[in-house]
Order: sequence, then structure tokens, then C-alpha cells
Amino acid sequence: MIRVLVNGMGVIGKRVALAVKKQDDMELVGISDAAFTGPIRTLLSERGELYGTKLYCSAPQFCDSMKEQGIVEGLLENFLKSGGVDVVVDASPKGIDAKNKEMYKKYGVRAIFQGGASAGIADVSFNSYTNYDEARGKQFVRVVSCNTTSLARTIGSLHKKYGVERAFVTLIRRATDPPKVKIGPINAIVPDLKVPSHHGPDLKTVLHGVDVFTMAVKVPETLTHIHVVEATLKKEITTEELLKTFNEHSRINVFSAGHGFGSNAEIIEAMRDLGRPRYDMPEVAVWKELTHAEGNKVYWMHAVHSESIVIPENIDAIRAMFELASQNESIEKTNKAMGIMKLNL
Amino acid sequence: MIRVLVNGMGVIGKRVALAVKKQDDMELVGISDAAFTGPIRTLLSERGELYGTKLYCSAPQFCDSMKEQGIVEGLLENFLKSGGVDVVVDASPKGIDAKNKEMYKKYGVRAIFQGGASAGIADVSFNSYTNYDEARGKQFVRVVSCNTTSLARTIGSLHKKYGVERAFVTLIRRATDPPKVKIGPINAIVPDLKVPSHHGPDLKTVLHGVDVFTMAVKVPETLTHIHVVEATLKKEITTEELLKTFNEHSRINVFSAGHGFGSNAEIIEAMRDLGRPRYDMPEVAVWKELTHAEGNKVYWMHAVHSESIVIPENIDAIRAMFELASQNESIEKTNKAMGIMKLNL
Amino acid sequence: MIRVLVNGMGVIGKRVALAVKKQDDMELVGISDAAFTGPIRTLLSERGELYGTKLYCSAPQFCDSMKEQGIVEGLLENFLKSGGVDVVVDASPKGIDAKNKEMYKKYGVRAIFQGGASAGIADVSFNSYTNYDEARGKQFVRVVSCNTTSLARTIGSLHKKYGVERAFVTLIRRATDPPKVKIGPINAIVPDLKVPSHHGPDLKTVLHGVDVFTMAVKVPETLTHIHVVEATLKKEITTEELLKTFNEHSRINVFSAGHGFGSNAEIIEAMRDLGRPRYDMPEVAVWKELTHAEGNKVYWMHAVHSESIVIPENIDAIRAMFELASQNESIEKTNKAMGIMKLNL
Amino acid sequence: MIRVLVNGMGVIGKRVALAVKKQDDMELVGISDAAFTGPIRTLLSERGELYGTKLYCSAPQFCDSMKEQGIVEGLLENFLKSGGVDVVVDASPKGIDAKNKEMYKKYGVRAIFQGGASAGIADVSFNSYTNYDEARGKQFVRVVSCNTTSLARTIGSLHKKYGVERAFVTLIRRATDPPKVKIGPINAIVPDLKVPSHHGPDLKTVLHGVDVFTMAVKVPETLTHIHVVEATLKKEITTEELLKTFNEHSRINVFSAGHGFGSNAEIIEAMRDLGRPRYDMPEVAVWKELTHAEGNKVYWMHAVHSESIVIPENIDAIRAMFELASQNESIEKTNKAMGIMKLNL
Repeated sequence: MIRVLVNGMGVIGKRVALAVKKQDDMELVGISDAAFTGPIRTLLSERGELYGTKLYCSAPQFCDSMKEQGIVEGLLENFLKSGGVDVVVDASPKGIDAKNKEMYKKYGVRAIFQGGASAGIADVSFNSYTNYDEARGKQFVRVVSCNTTSLARTIGSLHKKYGVERAFVTLIRRATDPPKVKIGPINAIVPDLKVPSHHGPDLKTVLHGVDVFTMAVKVPETLTHIHVVEATLKKEITTEELLKTFNEHSRINVFSAGHGFGSNAEIIEAMRDLGRPRYDMPEVAVWKELTHAEGNKVYWMHAVHSESIVIPENIDAIRAMFELASQNESIEKTNKAMGIMKLNL
Repeated sequence: MIRVLVNGMGVIGKRVALAVKKQDDMELVGISDAAFTGPIRTLLSERGELYGTKLYCSAPQFCDSMKEQGIVEGLLENFLKSGGVDVVVDASPKGIDAKNKEMYKKYGVRAIFQGGASAGIADVSFNSYTNYDEARGKQFVRVVSCNTTSLARTIGSLHKKYGVERAFVTLIRRATDPPKVKIGPINAIVPDLKVPSHHGPDLKTVLHGVDVFTMAVKVPETLTHIHVVEATLKKEITTEELLKTFNEHSRINVFSAGHGFGSNAEIIEAMRDLGRPRYDMPEVAVWKELTHAEGNKVYWMHAVHSESIVIPENIDAIRAMFELASQNESIEKTNKAMGIMKLNL
Repeated sequence: MIRVLVNGMGVIGKRVALAVKKQDDMELVGISDAAFTGPIRTLLSERGELYGTKLYCSAPQFCDSMKEQGIVEGLLENFLKSGGVDVVVDASPKGIDAKNKEMYKKYGVRAIFQGGASAGIADVSFNSYTNYDEARGKQFVRVVSCNTTSLARTIGSLHKKYGVERAFVTLIRRATDPPKVKIGPINAIVPDLKVPSHHGPDLKTVLHGVDVFTMAVKVPETLTHIHVVEATLKKEITTEELLKTFNEHSRINVFSAGHGFGSNAEIIEAMRDLGRPRYDMPEVAVWKELTHAEGNKVYWMHAVHSESIVIPENIDAIRAMFELASQNESIEKTNKAMGIMKLNL
Repeated sequence: MIRVLVNGMGVIGKRVALAVKKQDDMELVGISDAAFTGPIRTLLSERGELYGTKLYCSAPQFCDSMKEQGIVEGLLENFLKSGGVDVVVDASPKGIDAKNKEMYKKYGVRAIFQGGASAGIADVSFNSYTNYDEARGKQFVRVVSCNTTSLARTIGSLHKKYGVERAFVTLIRRATDPPKVKIGPINAIVPDLKVPSHHGPDLKTVLHGVDVFTMAVKVPETLTHIHVVEATLKKEITTEELLKTFNEHSRINVFSAGHGFGSNAEIIEAMRDLGRPRYDMPEVAVWKELTHAEGNKVYWMHAVHSESIVIPENIDAIRAMFELASQNESIEKTNKAMGIMKLNL
């Protein structure tokens, strides 16, 4: 049983903690946060059973009073020093993760960082499908961001089967997480000023040999990102073959607009109907009607539930680092434990 | 065991069906819909276990082909004629419900209608707290709408304890359900042209003796309605007494902005964190910081999750009609079965 | 000719500058800003004719380089010291205005502050209709905020005619100005945590003898605020009398939903159709269908174009301070110069 | 003087009418509408001077009563029959335009249709820059849609200078016009289900020899569309050459995010600041920071003000049909009359 601690209880951290608890080869030995402020502190005080594990704080200046109040066991650093943790999934804010790394190094604890960190923070960037084996035995691994993960799955599956020469992707990004009410825009479209956006270069860290160019905008919406993709393959395929490739991928689901799923809101409603916790959708959603092949060019749009898509990749990354399972075994175990499945909607 | 059929699988129907299944004195003997089109048909085809009951169709013209395809057992009317149903929870669209009533009458089946129907459709309008006993033994009962239900709880609880002379309520309505992507506005506020809006008169059907005046607007938001209330009591109370009244109500939860719940989005995020199915919140959410008493006037704002708030009232209405339990017993049973609880957030 | 300088070229300042230019008893002798950054700098560099006046900077640290580049004449303080300005309309950000006041005092220059400043900054708060004469001869005057100005007009006109005992107002606020793309919420309603909100007390600074209680929320919309008002009069009036009172006010326009103006977006579109600069609407917009009287209680909703409603009040305030005209004369002059008129839509 | 009548007073028609009045070689002899319902009727009744021309109605069933009320001169058909009109700019709703064409044919009146009509309605589709001369002497001309017009300008200018082999465009569409409050989505992204979307084929009707593939989504925003373009040129160019090409085009303006124009909302605010009527922006807006060249591939994003971009093309189309001016003369005349200019922001 690998002993896992999740550090940082934001959007990603709170989900990884629950996912770890569902695995039979891992144990959630604790969760930590700088100071557990805001909603998470209130929820944990009132509903300790939510995460069913011990709490640690990472900010020394707040730790004593929290310990006295019985909220936390103590300082994260002391727990790491004690040898009680095999791996930390670090989901702390950008900038903090780099500082944390020094602490993990000091105590010889392994760690997984998230896509918000720069690639240089880890020995390797990771996607379950495109480079699982590269994480074997590594101390520091970085799971690429939600957008990059979705492209690694879709473009990656085509690349493996047919070879992808080049892809041009427009990312239409939801502007923020649903509860972040201070962030806009309200009625505007805001381009990402970097051309290419960072997503293309980031994809290359986990998917080798594909030339990818990305541009991005933010729109006033909170559900999912949408990617519009044109990929040039090394051979000609049909629309049926394109669709089949996506259908065969265990973390891509194909939705049919003709069946009532003509927008990301209707797809998210299906997640609610299916009883998915938090309406999470760790699978990439591809629209059947929007897959299209012409010669060696293929086109599609997919939706990315940015809050949850990287959660299964974090779990797989743990298995890869500790060589607990082969790529296929890990993906299958994670999918089963998390309820990731082919939906045929 | 009361045999319940839910007719109409929209926003309310799909929730009532699941809630009925959680009760130990009711049995879900079927769900029906005109033709199970769109997402619900796809979901039921792929995930028959979602509702775990038999399907019937209410539109004869579609029924044969659906029966042949093995989707439905047959026509709803035939099932009602066979005597297999004690009560129908009718959640069909406005206009259809009135036609359905004739069918229920013909076969002597009892029925519960929703707040979208006019009050005249039923023998009595219903709220679990303000007039439970008025539904005893009735054939046709109407559960008032989401907005009215929230006012029956909040104003009703004050009325019971202190007497409410008058209330003025501004309803700030989310414009539509989350998956309805064709409906706006996108960047506008749209007043309800009726003054008073229908909510005030509707409240009087379940809360007697209180003069209520309501005005309403629609805003571009999909999470919850917000009500802003000024109530004039028959005696002076303090802000503490106001808050205590809400805290004592079993389907009102008080949220503190100071604890990170300063908007309806942060409250809905808490429902996601708590693992509530579909992030449903059948409780009214009152903001602690927005309760205020001055003399015999009290003020507050509350959020209404319109998709789910009337679900427990539908369950209670069944018990009241069949005299299965006293008011308090029914409320307690429903709350326990549905996970409705005091949160202290 | 009163020599006017506008300090602070944000939402209010840029509009006041143009309005001053349209008056025949005032001269725009300059505009100033801390550093003319962002769009305003670009626009002024490219289109100097936009404001047709001299530029001054108020931040010494940026002034030299801007003077060298020929953008500004020099430091605002030096210009004030030279005696070239009779009155400054200060539309600088909150906090800065208080510092500026010391400078105006030092050089004996009069000044008008905006509603964002606390009432204490000035000798008197001002509204053209309710207390014009109180500003006569004063050195420092504060024009109340957009929301308060709209209430001074509507409630004030009823108070003058019939006497208003009390009013309860719900303010549904557009969350931010149209070009501010970083500010949300995107899909949420955010209550103002102060009860009563500051608007009620603020109204009392210009409208004496009326008890007003206000509560406010922010919604994801950028066009106008909407107020929902219940007022208790000292006598009974009819809906016709209510409507007539608003129709008689020279800065209130009544719009009919039945004529196609059923939302604030359709009203703003009319401003575009009418050729109003920037679609500005300095008049309060009342919906005909939403005016309602019952006994001595009256109800209505109105829309407030927060970017422009206080501009004519700033102009009137100058006339009042310098005793250039009587209240009625000033209002008439300002309205004519700015194109404020009765629309009958 | 070409005698112009505008038929259909919606978003496009009301703008074309005003633009015609600004030309010295055209006369606006009338405007017509089926029944002048809603806001436009109210505005015209109250502010006859808005369009300063005679009104005709096209729906016989409403015409008599409107004539009696003095609103209209009479039936459009009678006016056409009388020979008082040289050309109709038809901006009536889809479907109606095809019926109108039969009437124009009958009376030998020329007509211009809009991009909502299918290409088959006219002898030729039109863009001022790419195929002006093809409209010479034609009876029926169709001005392509807002999206297509923007692509004809941007891609067309590159094609003329360097040759464009192929372009892939993602269109991020504002979901509706600002005053249309019934149309959503509120919080969702809705893909256009056609792949390629109709925009690519439509562009080919006015820009010959370029292979264009387009995909589109709708987002909850009302200001402008945004296009994200990758174009493959016949030769390599630099980012400077790309930018220069756009800068040289008389209906493309380049905006710098670094100067405060980092979103379409900030660009539209500049139109308000510049005093543009209705904040219209007939020019395409390209972001400087988002132009990028790599080898023979170029990338950019541009904003399309869908309400106004085709207005100058309608004016040019009239000149082309009647051979009033050469391409360059017409463009220059139209630009000058309408205030279209290079902004350097």
C-alpha cells in the first residue's frame, strides 16, 4: 500500500484525495493545506468524514492555533520528516509548488506536481496513455494540465494508430471555476496573448514527434473548455475510422448531438443524471457529428472538464512511479475504481 | 406500500422518481413520458438501471414502436386502467397536466400536480410545513412551485412563531435550467411584467393570513433564484431570534459569507463537495450576514435551488394524501431518506 | 465662463469632460489623470481632438517624461497654483480623491467629488432635484452615486408631491462596467453583505425626511442596474398618478414593454437607435407596466445607466456652487445641452 | 442619384438606411417593413426624423390601417410599381427575401440581398475587395455575411499579395444581437453541428482559388464574433509583413493589447469613446500581439462586429451594380462618408 498525502485542497487536490481512497493499492494518509481557509475549512470542521483522513497544515505561522483547535495533527513538514508518506500529490498554487519541492527533496519523499507548474519542476511530464513508462522509478513527476491531457488522449490516440504530422488547435476556455465569482469576463471574449499558447509546447513534453500549434481565448462560461482541432495524419482515414479511434479510447466518450447532447451544458447534465460525484467528467467528450475526415486531414471538437480530467492521470502517475502496475493494468484499475466507462450517448 | 408512478421525466420528474425509491413506505412502480425523447431516452436505453423501474409512454402515437423496441411496457393509460397505480406524481408540461387529470379521474387514480399548473387543477395546494393536514384524503393535490415553497418555509416559519402581517419580496430568478441552451438572456435583466407577480397570490394558497406582495426579474444565471425579503411581524424580534427561527427549520440551512459562502455559486460548490446527487439542494439557503431585524421588520435573502426544492414536498404530499404519517413524522422520514440535514456552514 | 478641469479620466471623468464642453457658461480648461495609461492614453495620442483641451498629469513621478513626449502640459498642481482653474470635477479613484482635496484646499480651488467618496469629503452631498440650493456657494460638493441619484429622482419626485414615509428598495446591480473583463461573476448572484446596503443612508444625505431601506445583489450583466421599489406614501394615489409623476420629471423616461422595451437590453438598444453618444442614458428608465399603486403603497422598477446618470448632476452642481443659475434654469440648460429629453417610448 | 429603398428594418436594414443618407450619389427614397412592429415602430412614431424618409409597408394585411394612421405612405409593391425606386436593399428575414425577389423581378427593380439568403438568390455574391467588378450591371447581388466579409478582407488581402493555399478558421460566435433577450445560451458553449460550417463554402463565392475550412461555436456573449485563423501561404512571409498587409487594408484596424485593447470589450469601448454611432465598427479588428508567421504559415485572431461590418459593402455593391464608380473610388467614398478610418490603436 503506497502511502499518499495530498497537499493543497483546491479544485484538483480535493478530487485527488477522494480518488486515492477508492484505490486498493494506495492509502490516503493525510491531506494538507496552507491554512485550510474558506469553504474547505468549514466543510472539514462540520463534516470530518468528508475525506476520512488526518489533516496537516503547511504554513507554520497558522499551525499552532489550528493544532490547539484540534483541526490539524500538526505541521506537514514534521509528518514528512517522520517517514509516514511515500508520495505527495502536490496541488498547491503556482509558485508554492516549487518551494514545496525543496522540502520533498530534503526528506526524500516523492511527489507529483500539476500542470500549472513549469515542466522543469519534475524529472518528467506525464500522461497515462502517451508516456506512462517514462515515469517509472522517478522521484518527481508532473501531470500535464487539463487541456494538454485532453489533447494527449485525442491526438495521442490518432498518432499511435496512424501517425499525426501536425495539429492546429483552437482552445475555447471557460474563464474560471464555477465558484470563483470575482473572475470575469461577463460579456466579452479575451484572447490569450501568447502565440502559440503554452498548450502546444506543453503537449510535446508528453507526446513526442507531433508538431502542434495552439491558440486560445477565454469566454464567459464555467462548465468546460472546448477544443477545435484540425490534424494532418500520415495517411488518409475515413470519418468512421476517426470515430472508431475515439470510441476505442477508454477515457474518451463520444456524444451524439442528435441524441440531445448538442452542447457542453447538455453533456454536463448527463453527468448529473448519471450520478457522477460533483458532475465530474474525467473522460474527454467528443461530438459524433463534429468528427470529420477529408483526405489525410481530420477535424473534431471535444469538451474538457477541467476540474476532473487529470484526476485519473494523477492516480496512474503514482502507479507508474512506484512500478505498481503496467500501463494497461493501471488504466484499467483506475477506470474501474473511479467509475470511468464507455457511455454510448 | 403506496404504489407511485411518475409521469413526465423532466427536471422535477426525474428527481421525484429517485426520491420515491428511497422511501420505505412507497414503491416506484413505473415512470412514464410522452415519448422519452432526447437525453432521457438515450440515458435510459444505455443505463436502464438509472431508475430501476418499468417505463410507460403516455402518447399513443409513439407507443407501439417503442413497445416493439422493448423500451416501454406499454401505454400509461392501460397501466392505470389495470389498477396497478395508487398515485401518479404528474410532472408533465403545463397544459398536458390538465388533460392527464381527466385520465386519472376516469380510473380513480390519485395524483399530485406541480406548481406550474394553476391552483384550480387540484383540491388543495400543498406545502409540508404550512398546510400538511389539508391534503389528508384528497384525490388531487398540487405542490406549489419552487419559489412559493421557499417562501412558505421562511415566511411560514416566522408566521407560525411570531405572526407575519405583510411581506414584500423581490425575486431574482435564474433565467432557465442549466442544460437549456436556447434560452436567454445573455447580457440583460428582464422584468416579469405582472405586478404583483404570481408568486404572492400563489403563496396565499398554502400560507393563510399573510399579505404578500412580490415582484420578479430574470437574470442571466442558471444556479438558483435569490429572494430579497422584507417582512413586517406582529411583534418585535431581534436578529438573533430571526436567525434562530431559520436555524430551527429542518429544510432551511444558514450559510455564512464569512466562512466562504458569499454567493450562490459558492453554496452550490458546497453541495458538490458534500456529494449531493446532481448538486441538489432541497433546503432553502439563508445567508447569516443578510438576516437583519429592526423593530417589527425583518430582512433576509435566501437562495432557492429550483430544480430540487419541491422534491421532498412531493414525497410528503403522498403521505398526507394517504394519511401514512403525521406531518412531523413524514417530514422526518423524508429528510432522513433524502439526506436533508442541518449543515452549519 | 467658469473654468472647469476634470481630474481622472475613467468612466465618469471622460463623460463629464464632454458634457462641460457642451455648456455655454463653462469652459473646459483641461483634463488630468495620474498617468493617462491604457486605452485613454492611446486614444488621446491618436485622436487629440477627442477632448479638445489641454492635458495635465497628477502623478509627479510620471510627469516629466510625459511632458517631454508632448503628451501633457505639465503637473496638475502647477496649473492649479497658477490660478487657471475655478473648479475641479474630481473623478479619480476612491482614496485618491481625499488626497486631492488637500491640494484643492491649498490652492483655494473648488471641487466636486463623486459618489464613491464618503459623504464627509464635501460640505454637502448633491442632487439636482432634491437639494440644489444646498450647494450654493460651497467649496466642496459631492454628487451622490448612480444608484442614489436614481432614487433621489424617483422617490424624490413622489416625496415632493405626496410625501413618502418609507421605501424598501432591492438593487440588482450590473457587476461591472462593460470593458472591465477581469471582473465577474460569470454565472452567479453575489449579495452585498451589508444590510442595509450603503445606498439607503446615502440617499438620506440628499433627500431629507424619508426612511429608506436598501438591499443589493450583483448579477452577471453589464448594461444597467435595476431597482425594485416599494414606497409607502403619506396619502393614497392611483397608478395613473404614479405614472404621471414620473412622466413629469425631466430626467425620468417611461418605457412600455408592450412597445418592445421589455428589458434593459431593449432600452439600451433604443439609445443606440437614437444616436445617443456611447448609448448613454442619463435619464432613469421606468417601465410603464411595472408601475402599480395599491392604497398608499406604490411599486415600480427602474433601470439606471450607471455610466452616465450622474453626468448632468455634475454640471448642475457647478452652476449651483457658483450660483450661475436657479435650480430650474440649470436643469433646463443642462438637459438641452446634453440632449436629455422626454421620449415617450 | 440612385434612388435606394431599404426593405426590412432589422439590425442590418436600419444601419444601411442611415449609411445611404450619407452618400452624395444616392438618395434614400424610402424604408419599408412588413408591419413596423416593436421598438422600430415606436421609435419612428416618436422620432420621425430618425430616418428622414418615407415609410412603406410590405404586408398588405397591415397596410390599410397603418396608412390611415399616417404611419406609412402605402404598400411597398405600389411604390415599386410606380417606378420610384432604382434599387432595393433587402434586409428582410430569411425566407421572406426569396419571395420579395419575385416582386422585384416583376417590376424590374434591382436588389441587394444579405448573407442570410442562400447564394442562389442572386446573380453574384459580393465583397468590396475581392470581386467588386463581378457585380457590374447585375440585377441581383448578394452581400455575403458578416463572418464571410471579415474573412474576405483578411484572407483576401493576403491572397492578393502572397497567394493563400489554404486556411483553417475557428469561428467563436457571439450567440445573438444585444437586444435579443430570449436567446441563449447563458452558461454553455454550443457547437455548430455542420462540419465544415457554411462559412467556408460561402467565402469561396467571393474569394476564388482559396481552400478554406471552417468550424464554429456559439458562446454567451453579445459584442463581436472572434475568428482564429491559420493560413498557409504560397510563400514565406514575416510577422511584420503579415501585420503590414492588415495595416494597409482600409477596412481592417490593428489593435494592440499592450495599449489596453486586450479583449473585444475593450475594443468596443474604444468605439464608444470615439463617438461611433451605436458603437458600430465596420472595420475588422486584428490584434497586433496575435499576428504570427512561421515559414509559410500565418496566424491571427480578429473580431467581427456582426451588426455593422457589412454596411459599407452594401453601399459599395450599389455603386458596382450601377457602375457609379471604380472599386477603389467606391471604397474611398464609402469610407469617407461613413467615418471608416485607420485608427492606430
